[in-house]
Amino acid sequence: MTRAADPPPRSRPPRILISCGDPAGIGPEVVCAAWAATSVHGRASLRVVADAAMLAGVLAGRPGVPRLPLVTVTAGDDRPSHAAEILVIEPDGPSPAATALPPVGTVSAAGGRAAVAAVEAAHRLITRGLADALVTGPLHKEALRAAGHDVPGHTELLARACGLPDEAVSMMLWLPGTATGADPAGGLGVVHATLHESLRSAVARLSPAGIAAAGLRLVPLLTALLGRSPRIAVAALNPHGGEGGLFGTEERGLVAPAVDRLRAAGIDVAGPIPADTLFLRASRGEYDGVVALYHDQGHIPVKLLGMHRAVNITLGLPMVRTSVAHGTAFDIVATGRADATSMLAAIDAAARLVAAGWPGVTAAAGPAPSPAAP
Amino acid sequence: MTRAADPPPRSRPPRILISCGDPAGIGPEVVCAAWAATSVHGRASLRVVADAAMLAGVLAGRPGVPRLPLVTVTAGDDRPSHAAEILVIEPDGPSPAATALPPVGTVSAAGGRAAVAAVEAAHRLITRGLADALVTGPLHKEALRAAGHDVPGHTELLARACGLPDEAVSMMLWLPGTATGADPAGGLGVVHATLHESLRSAVARLSPAGIAAAGLRLVPLLTALLGRSPRIAVAALNPHGGEGGLFGTEERGLVAPAVDRLRAAGIDVAGPIPADTLFLRASRGEYDGVVALYHDQGHIPVKLLGMHRAVNITLGLPMVRTSVAHGTAFDIVATGRADATSMLAAIDAAARLVAAGWPGVTAAAGPAPSPAAP
Repeated sequence: MTRAADPPPRSRPPRILISCGDPAGIGPEVVCAAWAATSVHGRASLRVVADAAMLAGVLAGRPGVPRLPLVTVTAGDDRPSHAAEILVIEPDGPSPAATALPPVGTVSAAGGRAAVAAVEAAHRLITRGLADALVTGPLHKEALRAAGHDVPGHTELLARACGLPDEAVSMMLWLPGTATGADPAGGLGVVHATLHESLRSAVARLSPAGIAAAGLRLVPLLTALLGRSPRIAVAALNPHGGEGGLFGTEERGLVAPAVDRLRAAGIDVAGPIPADTLFLRASRGEYDGVVALYHDQGHIPVKLLGMHRAVNITLGLPMVRTSVAHGTAFDIVATGRADATSMLAAIDAAARLVAAGWPGVTAAAGPAPSPAAP
Repeated sequence: MTRAADPPPRSRPPRILISCGDPAGIGPEVVCAAWAATSVHGRASLRVVADAAMLAGVLAGRPGVPRLPLVTVTAGDDRPSHAAEILVIEPDGPSPAATALPPVGTVSAAGGRAAVAAVEAAHRLITRGLADALVTGPLHKEALRAAGHDVPGHTELLARACGLPDEAVSMMLWLPGTATGADPAGGLGVVHATLHESLRSAVARLSPAGIAAAGLRLVPLLTALLGRSPRIAVAALNPHGGEGGLFGTEERGLVAPAVDRLRAAGIDVAGPIPADTLFLRASRGEYDGVVALYHDQGHIPVKLLGMHRAVNITLGLPMVRTSVAHGTAFDIVATGRADATSMLAAIDAAARLVAAGWPGVTAAAGPAPSPAAP
C-alpha cells in the first residue's frame, strides 16, 4: 500500500460518475432517488453515465422515482450538480437504446450491454482525467454473460480495463456509522483474507502473510474514509478462538503471527478475537475495521447489520470505485420499494475517498508495512 | 426422537425449579428480577433452589434487585408461586453458606460448589417426581474446576447426573419472537451439526447423517415450543451455497442429501441456503429453525440478533432444562446493569415445554424419522 507521493491539494470538488448498473434492475431507481436526496451536491459534482434516451425510457416505467429532468452534458462541462436536475454524460459509441430498450426485472443481453457501456465509458473518463471516481449500481452476472462478458461483476470488469489480473483487486464492505447506530462519522469496514472459494480450501490456504496482507489493505482505506488512524481487529478461525488449543491451533499458528506483523507495522490491532463476539463488539464501535478469515464469517454479520445500507469499495484499482452492496433485486423493480440507502452511502464514501486523495493514501503511522507482508 | 407414548394430560401447572448458577455472577440478580417480572406465575409454579441464608447474603450486596422476601418451602409444598415473594427450596447436605459466602464478581471454589449443589438438588427433585423442569442461571467453568468438577458446564453436569455420556446431549439456541421482532408467539431455534471442535475438523466430519440428525433433534423441540409443525432450513457450507460447485461440492454431496432425508421424514425443510442470507430471512420469520453446520455459523448471527435475549435449551436429557445463554458477566455484577431478558425467556420456554409434554414430544407429521437418520 506504499504508493508514490501525497496527492496534490485538490482545487475543485470531487467529480463523481454514477452508473445505473443493469437498467432492468433497481439501479436506475436508486440512482435517481439518491441524486434527489444526497447532501453530497455542493462538496462533490455528480454525473450519471447513461444513454439519456434509454434512461428516460426506463424511468418512465418506474413509479415512486423522483421525476427529475435529465440534462445531457459533455465530459468537459464543469458545472456543479444539484438535486433538481440530473446531469447525464452519454457513453461513446452506438446507443444501446438504438438497438433495444432492456426489458424490466429480468436478465437480458441488452441490460448487460448497457451496464458494461456505462462502466467502460466511466473508466475512460477517469483515465483521461475528466472525472475522479466511479459509483456503480447493481448489475447481474447472467446479463453480463448474455452480453458476451464472461466476468463475475464490475470489479473484475474494471480490473481488466485497468490491465490488472483479477487477483490484484479485492473489496471492502463498508457499513457507515449511520447503519450500525454507532458514531455517524465512523463506520465498520470488513475485508476478507479469503473469499470466493470453498470453506475447506479457505481454511487450508490461510497463512500469516495472507491475513496480514488483508489488514494492510484495510488500514489505508479506513484511514482515508475516517480521516484518522483506525483501530482494527482480526477474527479467530475456531469456536471460542480455539479455546486455548482445544478447538484448533490456527489462532496460535496463523492468526496471532499475522496480528504481530500488523502491530509491528504500527497498526492499532487486536486479535485473534472469537468471531461470534467480534462483530457484536465492532458494531458497537469498538473497532473501525475487521479482517474476516473467510467469506461467510464477514458476510453473515454484515448482512444482519444491514446489507441494504452497506457499500462495496474496490481495493487495488488505480481509481476510486464504490458500489452498492445489494443486487439488481429484479423481484421489486418498479414497485417503488427500492431503497436508495446503499447508493447514498456509496456516493458519500466516494466523495470522502477522493477528498482524502485515495488511492494515494498510505498506511497510518509507524514503520512502512511492506516488509511485514511479503 | 420417537419416544414412548403421549404424555398424560397435566393435572397441575408445571413446577419449575430455578438455579442461580454461580452466586458470584449476575445469576442471583437476574433470577430475582425475573421472578418479580415474569407473567409465568399462574400458569406455572416456580421455586428457586438455593441455600436461603447464602442467597439472602448475596442479594444484600446487589443494588437494583427487587427486595423480595425469601420464603423457604419443602419440596412437597404445592402452593402456587407469585411475584411478591420468592419461594426457596434448599439443597440437602451441608450449607455452602456454613463454609464460605462466595466472593463477588470472581472465580471461586465456593461459587462453583454452590452452583453444583443447586443443580444436583434440582436434578434429584425432578427425578423423584417433585418438579417438572430446571431453569439454570450462568456458572463459570473455572469455578466449577476450582470446586473439583471437571466439566465444561451445566449440560455435561446434568448428562452425567442422568447417567448419559456427554455426546448424548446437545443444545438448541432459542431466540423468542419478541427478540427478533417477528411473531411474538414464535421464535428462531438454532441447532448445530458440529459444535465444539476446530473448523477444519468440523468441515471434515460433516455427513448427511449428522446433518439430518441435527434437523431431527430440532423439529420435535420446535414443535413443543410453538405448538405446531415448524418450518426449518439447513445452511449451506460454502460461499453463495457453493456457486453451483465452483466454490465447493459439500452442498450437493452432504447438505442436499441431508435435506432429502429430512423431507422424507415429513419435515417442512428448505436448503441448502447460503448462510449469509439464511439468518437474515429466518430472523424475519421465514423459518422457525435453522440447522447450522458449525459453531460460528450459528453463533455469529444469534449473538448479533440478541444473545442477551437468547435461551439455551438442552436436548437429549430425560427432563426439561433451559438456561440463560449469557455468562456470569463478572464485570457487571452488583452494578444494577444485569439484564433479566434471557432468564425470563428461559422460564417461559421451560413452561411451554412442560405444558407440551416435552421430552415425550415426537416429530411432527409424516413417516417416522428414525430410519432416515442411522
